[in-house]
Order: sequence, then structure tokens, then C-alpha cells
Amino acid sequence: MDIDIPAVKAEVETVFAEYEDALVSNDVATLDRLFFDAPTTIRFGGGENLYGYGEIAAFRSARNDGNLARRLERTVITTYGTAYATASTLFYRDTAPGKVGRQMQTWIKTDAGWQVAAAHVSVISET
Amino acid sequence: MDIDIPAVKAEVETVFAEYEDALVSNDVATLDRLFFDAPTTIRFGGGENLYGYGEIAAFRSARNDGNLARRLERTVITTYGTAYATASTLFYRDTAPGKVGRQMQTWIKTDAGWQVAAAHVSVISET
Repeated sequence: MDIDIPAVKAEVETVFAEYEDALVSNDVATLDRLFFDAPTTIRFGGGENLYGYGEIAAFRSARNDGNLARRLERTVITTYGTAYATASTLFYRDTAPGKVGRQMQTWIKTDAGWQVAAAHVSVISET
Repeated sequence: MDIDIPAVKAEVETVFAEYEDALVSNDVATLDRLFFDAPTTIRFGGGENLYGYGEIAAFRSARNDGNLARRLERTVITTYGTAYATASTLFYRDTAPGKVGRQMQTWIKTDAGWQVAAAHVSVISET
């Protein structure tokens, strides 16, 4: 298994940035497009556990679009072969001092391009 | 990409169970063996952010071995092709009423067998 093939990593870096832009601007259509439409897709969020693409899309549609700005730190994208990747990052919000968010995603390359098949977001106190 | 090929899924179910047994019995050698030894391996834990296999192994060695018993619910293992998988589960501890834990892992099949390349554990209040 080849790890971090440059061309593959560049692809994932591009979609990761696209996802981040969509997240902070609450571009629901893009967020939906970048998740894999399958009952196996799972997203554990800051306060909710979503099983299946349908639950995730419903959550996106209902989401309040305020207070989404954040800055990322220690982002690590790693690709395994040509169709599988993980993306992990810490994030901080000015409105949540003393807290650090953690976002971890598993990306797969499908017929529709790179999509998230599993994601987990949580926030803890900084130590 | 073939999803959930039965033989592949069976392999991952086996190592997932092995990992769980090692976790609740604090079998550090097995936990270490089931994580991919690379600087890219990341584990976001309940209260710590560990970057690289070295930080993860150091955390395991220092971990208190008390209060590890837990029960799993809604465990979903999904395989993508023959060398990639995600495993997501909720967990509950009798010592933490009203709380639900979430564990998400990305597994890859390496020369050393199936290993975790990325993991994220967090605990939130039940809604």
C-alpha cells in the first residue's frame, strides 16, 4: 500500500478545503455532495450521533447557520493507496475560548469523486 | 469499490473484537500491535490529542487500568475494497450515567495485518 502518493494527496487536499469552505459558509448542497450517500455512512457530531446518509442530510438542512467560523490547526491528511484517505484536524472558535475541537474524517474515492464515509467531531477543554 | 465483501468484513470484525478485549483488559502489547506504527497515525482520545504512533504508545503505557469496562451499542463495521475499513460504535459505562461514548476507527490492512491508522474517541451527554 502506497502512502501519500503526491497526486492522490493533492486531490484530497482540494476536496478537504472545499468541504471546509462549505462548512463555514453553511453550503448544505456541497456538504451533502461531499458525503457518501449510503446507509453505512456515519457522522458523530458535537452533540449528535447520525447513522446513515439520510440522518446526516437532515441534520445539515436543519442546522443553524450562525457561529460557524473557525480556524484549523495541525491538519494532517494521509492517503492510503489511491482511493482511501484520512483527514484529521484541530479547530478553534473565538466564541469558545479554552476549547479545542477535533475533526476526523475517512474519505473514499467513489464514482462521484472523493466523499466522506465516516466523520467524528468533538470538542474538549484544552489541557 | 466493493463494500462489505463478507470475507473481508469477517476479518475486520475479528480484529475489532480483539481490540475491544485488549482495551477493557488494558492489554497494552495488543493495543500497540493493532495500531499502525507510523508518524501519520493519529488518535484523538477522550481528553488528549495524540499525533504519531509514539505519542499513542506512550499514552497507552501510562494509562490507568481501572474503570475500563464498557458495553457497546450500534457498532457498525464497513469495509471498502479489501484493505480499508471503518468501525464506529457507541459505548456506555456504568460509572458514567447519562453519558454516551463514541469511538470511530479507520483500519487499514498492512503487512502486519489489520491496524488502526486513525481513531477518535469522545464522550457527550445523552440527549
